[in-house]
Amino acid sequence: MLTLYYAAHTCSLASHIALVDAGAKYELKRVDFGKTEQRSPAYLSVNPKARVPAMVTPCGILTETPAMLVFIAQSFPKARLAPINDPFAFAELQSFNSYLCSTLHVAHAHRMRGHRWADDPASFADMQRKVPQSVGACYELIESRMFRGPWVMGDSYTIADPYLFTLAQWLEDDGVKPTRIPRVIDHRFRMAERPNVKKAIAEEITE
Amino acid sequence: MLTLYYAAHTCSLASHIALVDAGAKYELKRVDFGKTEQRSPAYLSVNPKARVPAMVTPCGILTETPAMLVFIAQSFPKARLAPINDPFAFAELQSFNSYLCSTLHVAHAHRMRGHRWADDPASFADMQRKVPQSVGACYELIESRMFRGPWVMGDSYTIADPYLFTLAQWLEDDGVKPTRIPRVIDHRFRMAERPNVKKAIAEEITE
Repeated sequence: MLTLYYAAHTCSLASHIALVDAGAKYELKRVDFGKTEQRSPAYLSVNPKARVPAMVTPCGILTETPAMLVFIAQSFPKARLAPINDPFAFAELQSFNSYLCSTLHVAHAHRMRGHRWADDPASFADMQRKVPQSVGACYELIESRMFRGPWVMGDSYTIADPYLFTLAQWLEDDGVKPTRIPRVIDHRFRMAERPNVKKAIAEEITE
Repeated sequence: MLTLYYAAHTCSLASHIALVDAGAKYELKRVDFGKTEQRSPAYLSVNPKARVPAMVTPCGILTETPAMLVFIAQSFPKARLAPINDPFAFAELQSFNSYLCSTLHVAHAHRMRGHRWADDPASFADMQRKVPQSVGACYELIESRMFRGPWVMGDSYTIADPYLFTLAQWLEDDGVKPTRIPRVIDHRFRMAERPNVKKAIAEEITE
């Protein structure tokens, strides 16, 4: 049994979808950001970073989406969620996910989480104004150079797909024009139609 | 043969050290940031992100440090640079490296690269003032909760070690007090004494 600590509308959805894709047995524990539960002593004992996601496994606790996604793929190899026996293809997949966590998600975070990197409200406003450009540049690079189609890495669905889908939920609110990235938008649409994705989203709403 | 595109004093040193550790056959190509070579058409054809590192392999080009480090570890398994056959231990290692790329390195980047996320010089100055706190918090978490010793992941040296060592070059300039993180500093000292690390650094100076 795996236990996923999640919050709705956050990047934890990527790992949640991957758990469904893997056919894993899992339970969900919601972390209520409205009550700042991520900073509660109980949650800090799970994840001292005070963020979601975190996943309790029989071997211990994991954090960081790229690591969790690979763990899910490796633990459920029959689901074929990553090319785990091809070092180069696996590295390309990891490169994509690393770009999402360290560049795209970070650019997005400057819209609401400027306090992580500055103190002055004027700086937060400046950061917010820049988000359409910085996040937009990430999506344009994904659209033109990184996304292969029909899935992120090409013919095979992988753990990069729920990760991109999850972050792509936020692009309109970030001020990115969907018409500039039609392949990303088409991918998001096709992902949203997948029963596994619908199941994961429904669980987060009803939990 | 692997070709590493690097720039001195950047995170590309981590992959460079790992190549030496792996016993890989490699060549170096310097990207001169002083001449903004990272934005030249020639380099953008290698890496459209206009960043280092990038690595040309017989299968294609890789970018993003966490992905490249794992590729090196998987391609040279005799060097035992990652627990590639233990999904949980591998995920813990990946989680550490993911934290470095998406949180620690990002916090550091706000000292010199504020233009990625804002436009106003006043915002850049605000970001710079915050760096000792934001980067310091990352190191204190690494020191108290993540670093195991004697190596990052415990008894075995892994690809997390050159990565932490590389980023830790910058902590004094980021305004982090070394006395608050004695284990990180001791690790940096022991890494600096390793012949493979000395070799990599010497190659970057003399290239």
